[in-house]
Amino acid sequence: MTAPTYDVAAIGNALVDIIADASDAFLQTHGIAKGGMMLVDADRASMLYSAIGPAVEMSGGSAANTVAGIASFGGKAAFMGKVKADQLGGIYRHDLTAQGVHFATPPSHTETPTGRCLILVTPDAERSMNTYLGAAVEFGVGDVDEATLRAASITYLEGYLFDPPEAKRAFRHAAAIVRDAGRQLALTLSDVFCVERHRAEFIDLIAADVDILFANQNELLALYQTQDLNTAIDAARKHCKIAVTTRSAKGAIIAAGNETVEVAAVPPVKLVDTTGAGDLFAAGFLYGHTHGKTLAESGHYGALAASEIISHYGPRAQRALKGLVGQAA
Amino acid sequence: MTAPTYDVAAIGNALVDIIADASDAFLQTHGIAKGGMMLVDADRASMLYSAIGPAVEMSGGSAANTVAGIASFGGKAAFMGKVKADQLGGIYRHDLTAQGVHFATPPSHTETPTGRCLILVTPDAERSMNTYLGAAVEFGVGDVDEATLRAASITYLEGYLFDPPEAKRAFRHAAAIVRDAGRQLALTLSDVFCVERHRAEFIDLIAADVDILFANQNELLALYQTQDLNTAIDAARKHCKIAVTTRSAKGAIIAAGNETVEVAAVPPVKLVDTTGAGDLFAAGFLYGHTHGKTLAESGHYGALAASEIISHYGPRAQRALKGLVGQAA
Repeated sequence: MTAPTYDVAAIGNALVDIIADASDAFLQTHGIAKGGMMLVDADRASMLYSAIGPAVEMSGGSAANTVAGIASFGGKAAFMGKVKADQLGGIYRHDLTAQGVHFATPPSHTETPTGRCLILVTPDAERSMNTYLGAAVEFGVGDVDEATLRAASITYLEGYLFDPPEAKRAFRHAAAIVRDAGRQLALTLSDVFCVERHRAEFIDLIAADVDILFANQNELLALYQTQDLNTAIDAARKHCKIAVTTRSAKGAIIAAGNETVEVAAVPPVKLVDTTGAGDLFAAGFLYGHTHGKTLAESGHYGALAASEIISHYGPRAQRALKGLVGQAA
Repeated sequence: MTAPTYDVAAIGNALVDIIADASDAFLQTHGIAKGGMMLVDADRASMLYSAIGPAVEMSGGSAANTVAGIASFGGKAAFMGKVKADQLGGIYRHDLTAQGVHFATPPSHTETPTGRCLILVTPDAERSMNTYLGAAVEFGVGDVDEATLRAASITYLEGYLFDPPEAKRAFRHAAAIVRDAGRQLALTLSDVFCVERHRAEFIDLIAADVDILFANQNELLALYQTQDLNTAIDAARKHCKIAVTTRSAKGAIIAAGNETVEVAAVPPVKLVDTTGAGDLFAAGFLYGHTHGKTLAESGHYGALAASEIISHYGPRAQRALKGLVGQAA
């Protein structure tokens, strides 16, 4: 096996984030589940957009946020995902490539515009996401760049990919390539509702193919249908080599075989917007893990990156993350 | 004269801001004058965009920032400016109307996309702007909504409008309507280079038609070709009823007839990005001035709004500005 060209290659839904403040009353009026991700069609996306206040736009998408973070740490990263060649698609492509992420997926050629995620940030800094997948649903098996996956130490897939049917097929195709290449497969469960939609398939996949699992506490409890975190972590421990469970302000628990590492959270200077916290924890962890760091060190990198991202609006770093780990990196 | 429907109506270049961090070396390499605004064509805009790092997008444009600020204070505001009905134009229209600003200018129907301003923020928080006017150049006399100007207590024009030839004609047409309606005309000089490009015409216009002039110290010195601020302020004092000169951290000087009011700056919690400081000072001042406040009080509102805007990225308020002035407003 040749040395990997990339530390991490990711496949994800390519989405531009549209971020606006909203009140709890607004969420209630519009039937939006706080803290979750709801899929919406073009009409509902348009209705919600006309109802929200002034917004800020920036590139997002869970797995893309993670590889952007890895590149910001100084790691080598690649991304696959579908945009249209429209203005938002151009912005999306610019931001990933400008961060140093290899992104070669050709744009779609249908009328469907680039996907977007309306992120409503309530005064408690919690984010509630409303995703119009747009062109992201057109990502298919043909968009999986086998050479890049074979050249990546770890391939990182987001659970959200199970929502668009073509992407789910691409997901399985990618997992097969990674297994065949003898590389590692990482998965993030993405969202409690996403787990509820695809539980059985997730469990099968994790048991069969996943080396590194990322989940927050609620997602892991939902996956294994238990209220006891230790029970859930022990189930995950049996299913994959490393299970990383994030717990917001309580930090994270990393389970690997018989080893269990507790990681303390790094408090942000000011808690502004939790968007991207999980994505950036994964970025820090994967950067550390692919650079010879211990589980505890890698977890600390994750906590540092998550702390940076929740101290401002949006899911992409506002400063080079490599600065956070200084000489240690 | 009937009571005004709007506190302020503004005409300006409708631009989406693309905000990215940049080093001083980057500015030097690309021949960008720090702190200024340079007009760029589509090719240079595209070249610069491909050279900058990951960015954030939000609606901008000098006069539009000001009316968005006035609406955020709780004032009644209108805007006229040209976008195309493309994705960025849709974002632009959404943000202004969602802020409560009346914005009825029909979109352009040419191939030219919505204009944008690449804003490079250096580590000292200074912003350097590179503007591709795009559809904004198609704003013409026919886009001046006479009824709205007649119904506005103050019409606010940005000096940048002198750059697109059609907009300059619209500018003069608007000034004539305001004079005929017996309303007040306000002008911001926008930029030192803009003053250099149009000095003689600005002086003629200010002497003939402008009631309230906004300028920063360097713009005012450039206008009157002097190095002495008192000389420049006294010249402005003779040309218009109120001359507001902003001086960054030194606050502002308001000259009105024989009266001179010094306004202290309000230090930001953290200086992040100076984009929109002048625009928001004007917003606070005009909101106060149209709500029965003294020159000193209005100036303080301006200082409060400017302080909010420079404490984060971008030229639009992240919280309702009316909260800054509390019961006093």
